[in-house]
Amino acid sequence: MKPGLKLGILGGGQLSRMMALSSYPYGILPHIYTLSLNEPATQVCTNVTVGKLNDEETLFHFIKNCDVVTFESEFWNSELLNSLSQKTQVNIFPAPQLMGLLQDRLTQKKLFEKYKIPTSPFMEASSEIELKNLKSWGKELVLKQRRFGYDGYGTFFISLSQNEKEYKKEWEKINDKSPYGFIIEKKISFKRELALIIARDQHGTMLDFPLVESKQTKARCDWVMGPIKHPKEFKLRTLLKRFLKKENYIGVIAFELFDTGTELLVNEIAPRVHNSGHYSQNALSISQFQAHILAVCGYPLPSQLKLLSPFAMVNLLGQSPNSPEWKMEIEKSNTTNKNSLHLHWYGKIENRQDRKMGHINALSNTPKEALKNALAARRKVLI
Amino acid sequence: MKPGLKLGILGGGQLSRMMALSSYPYGILPHIYTLSLNEPATQVCTNVTVGKLNDEETLFHFIKNCDVVTFESEFWNSELLNSLSQKTQVNIFPAPQLMGLLQDRLTQKKLFEKYKIPTSPFMEASSEIELKNLKSWGKELVLKQRRFGYDGYGTFFISLSQNEKEYKKEWEKINDKSPYGFIIEKKISFKRELALIIARDQHGTMLDFPLVESKQTKARCDWVMGPIKHPKEFKLRTLLKRFLKKENYIGVIAFELFDTGTELLVNEIAPRVHNSGHYSQNALSISQFQAHILAVCGYPLPSQLKLLSPFAMVNLLGQSPNSPEWKMEIEKSNTTNKNSLHLHWYGKIENRQDRKMGHINALSNTPKEALKNALAARRKVLI
Repeated sequence: MKPGLKLGILGGGQLSRMMALSSYPYGILPHIYTLSLNEPATQVCTNVTVGKLNDEETLFHFIKNCDVVTFESEFWNSELLNSLSQKTQVNIFPAPQLMGLLQDRLTQKKLFEKYKIPTSPFMEASSEIELKNLKSWGKELVLKQRRFGYDGYGTFFISLSQNEKEYKKEWEKINDKSPYGFIIEKKISFKRELALIIARDQHGTMLDFPLVESKQTKARCDWVMGPIKHPKEFKLRTLLKRFLKKENYIGVIAFELFDTGTELLVNEIAPRVHNSGHYSQNALSISQFQAHILAVCGYPLPSQLKLLSPFAMVNLLGQSPNSPEWKMEIEKSNTTNKNSLHLHWYGKIENRQDRKMGHINALSNTPKEALKNALAARRKVLI
Repeated sequence: MKPGLKLGILGGGQLSRMMALSSYPYGILPHIYTLSLNEPATQVCTNVTVGKLNDEETLFHFIKNCDVVTFESEFWNSELLNSLSQKTQVNIFPAPQLMGLLQDRLTQKKLFEKYKIPTSPFMEASSEIELKNLKSWGKELVLKQRRFGYDGYGTFFISLSQNEKEYKKEWEKINDKSPYGFIIEKKISFKRELALIIARDQHGTMLDFPLVESKQTKARCDWVMGPIKHPKEFKLRTLLKRFLKKENYIGVIAFELFDTGTELLVNEIAPRVHNSGHYSQNALSISQFQAHILAVCGYPLPSQLKLLSPFAMVNLLGQSPNSPEWKMEIEKSNTTNKNSLHLHWYGKIENRQDRKMGHINALSNTPKEALKNALAARRKVLI
């Protein structure tokens, strides 16, 4: 193996930025394909190509110039990437075909069925559907846009308590909102949301990242803490690993879970590094970014993780359209020998309400203490 | 405080590269001044200026464009930097004046005297010096070039066991080797070499990095392990901190020490991040690079460090003039839940015998176990 391997990363956002930063210590050189030069990853990388999502020619030249390619979101055209990978003889990991199945909530749900992964009941939505037949699922249904939904965008609720005419009208109104179609899911009443990450390398070695609790506010990740225990964790991991092995998955994959109190249901899968795994930058012997890079570049993963400390992560969300600004007290505040705080700023030029601008990782004696410290530190940050 | 602060770093080597990589998560943008585009830091930074060590005009424009400036070596022209800092009204930390005193072994030794920092006996060398008067120092004397010595380069030994004519002749031969002059030191017979780092921010907060053992082979750092205890550590730290406070030192400073068994003597000081502190990237809640950056940029240091695990670091030295190449097994080998290994590769284009090409950090239950694992991992790396 020689240093200087060229890793192509599709996307220029914060996930790409953190992957790029993690690749340098391995002697790997990141090449970024970004929609705009204003994106966070361009600040940390000297090899940048600007192109559109479906710009076949620019993508072709970008991929051809790399030794291996990965992506920071599952919203790419899987058929195009597949054909470019074949034309250029450059591997793209995770496999675009699986990315394609996971980027559509219906085919994603069907994968859950195929691998007997516990998930909420669902149904393909169509304008002819008889919502009243779904009343056994409860008083409210969840409608999710099949493609390009994220952070709550593309998710709607329909109350079946109103009369049939009303909720049918509502359904038609929602149905018009997306050209990609919807799926209908039973609304799960959960105790809390959990998440876990698994990494798998090209030799089949899998690395278990700890189970974490993940709090969503306004459908966006607000904080994460861990490690968390759950009696069904082992059983679920066994099923998930069977799925990853059968699909020959390469890279990091994130599973968002509902903890109903008795069951663990998989809500969504993201075939990439994920906000729920950012804590790993400071709390583990290997971060999700490092694990993903090693796996996609063909290097072996370590056989085990070392948990350095209980941890929490809080997102720093834009609070105004003003220029980002903060009181940089967070490294100082609340640090004792038991506790530490770690800022990860994304370098976004434009601030927006609720935009993810950075995050803080905290280490402490317990997950709850770490969360308390991280939240206290966040209150000192003005964005 | 606003994100986007421009940090100028003089030098393009591995220390600059690791400082640059550590600055991004704080929202700080590194600007590199490098002697050549082939240097390691240029791979990880989009803002690069190429210039010579004494190129006043290029340095002026570089410094003027930054918010604050630091350096990766103490070999810069301190008077030039001082005058450019005044002309541009841009701070350079650590202060160039102190860098100037420390870059000369004679003035460095005089600083030790001034602050009563224990060190080996020394004397300014001159061609008239009567070496025979120094026989009370032992059978061998150490001669160190006053400036531009590093990694054993510029260090010589004279045996006083031979007859006077012979060692005088030898001394004259050595004296011709440097235009900067020499100092003569008593050769200390030490049990082992230790090192420690202290960081000091602009508010006066100081951060104690742990005492480590440091092994030199062929006058180059071979490995480091820690934390180490020594009965004289506290007393020495008190003296060193008094020195840093009185000099209003800003940034990270490294002290290389001789442990004579009973005493701790300071051998050398480096006013910068240092090879003996690389372990901090994985073993501490804040690395020496992060601490240095926070301090020079005017941000507060945390009040305490969190030691995540006992640790070791081994340098990866070039073994041939061939292209660098390694078996990338080190993340896999020897990792259990107690142990972890971390590669830090510098991206140097040219390999040379004994050139520092990268390092491996190891975490384990004890410093010795960590060292054993790091050395075993290094045996699998072919450079």
